[in-house]
Amino acid sequence: MRVLLASRNAKKLGELRRIVAAERLDGIEVLGLDEVPEFPEAPETGATFEENAIAKAVDAAAATGLPSIADDSGIAVDALNGMPGVLSARWSGKHGDDLGNLELLLGQLGDVPDERRGAAFVAVVALAVPGAEPVVVRGEWRGTLLRAMRGANGFGYDPIFVPEGETRTSAEMTPAEKDADSHRGRALRLLLPHLRALAGQR
Amino acid sequence: MRVLLASRNAKKLGELRRIVAAERLDGIEVLGLDEVPEFPEAPETGATFEENAIAKAVDAAAATGLPSIADDSGIAVDALNGMPGVLSARWSGKHGDDLGNLELLLGQLGDVPDERRGAAFVAVVALAVPGAEPVVVRGEWRGTLLRAMRGANGFGYDPIFVPEGETRTSAEMTPAEKDADSHRGRALRLLLPHLRALAGQR
Repeated sequence: MRVLLASRNAKKLGELRRIVAAERLDGIEVLGLDEVPEFPEAPETGATFEENAIAKAVDAAAATGLPSIADDSGIAVDALNGMPGVLSARWSGKHGDDLGNLELLLGQLGDVPDERRGAAFVAVVALAVPGAEPVVVRGEWRGTLLRAMRGANGFGYDPIFVPEGETRTSAEMTPAEKDADSHRGRALRLLLPHLRALAGQR
Repeated sequence: MRVLLASRNAKKLGELRRIVAAERLDGIEVLGLDEVPEFPEAPETGATFEENAIAKAVDAAAATGLPSIADDSGIAVDALNGMPGVLSARWSGKHGDDLGNLELLLGQLGDVPDERRGAAFVAVVALAVPGAEPVVVRGEWRGTLLRAMRGANGFGYDPIFVPEGETRTSAEMTPAEKDADSHRGRALRLLLPHLRALAGQR
């Protein structure tokens, strides 16, 4: 069975592929958007991760006829009432400026004391199959935010995020360590039974 | 009776003085921080407007022995879960950069559709009298946020805020019109009975 991973973010796509590969889903072949004919993609203007992930997965499934997986994710900072949230990738007002987003967040939290620097990475993953209701799963990864960046792995806000039970940032963990614990890993593992069921049906 | 307005923000201070003056509070003389001996001021690191306003008013009353009024205020944007909130004056990571804060907010809301551009200006005003529990009042002013600035009156986020029932931004209203409706006007009018009672007692 072929499943489409409907993401244009190369780093997210890499993580998604890696996690699916590690789970050895026999009989499932994962395609990227570059392997299917082009279709118009809706902008991510939903108010929630769920809205955005479902819209992307449903659009991709409708356009390609393939079971399609889409992710929307970000960081929810306690001292910012859960923002940047759905705006994580464009927090500085510019899309995909990882460093600008991160530096802005550090500046905004400059006066926020250590005991209020909690945050969670959140990933919502939707699986849409043509003609069926989409399945939606959510993974969260709690931690605290540093005052300066550390580590060169990962992307986005990884260099300032220290997961609960860790002393390293998620940008100092290996990809395999990160996948084992991360929001995206957790969400995808919740999706696996649905993928397996789908593969078994076909 | 002398009352201290404990604010370093010249524009906020101007609004506070103007509103108090318009109410003709007989027997109340309003002082600014430049009219009392200097004292160390705590940083605004509270999680809420209330915490910050109370801390400032209580510190000022303890240091000067005068009944002291302090304000903490900002804009709560629906699509940002109520942020910038207490971080309104340093949203861009830099304190008091009105234009930078405003441009950042416009950028963050670039993809937010018209029907989700609601916001409220919020002002919390605390009155602390040495030896008594502080009084705290809150004023809110609902409106929607434009996609570009309009008007040269006001300050902060005024140039993109259109109050409910208005077609102009709060930066296009006259000072008197703004005071009659604004969050700060509403909060201060809630405080007046307490100020009058205090003046009557002395």
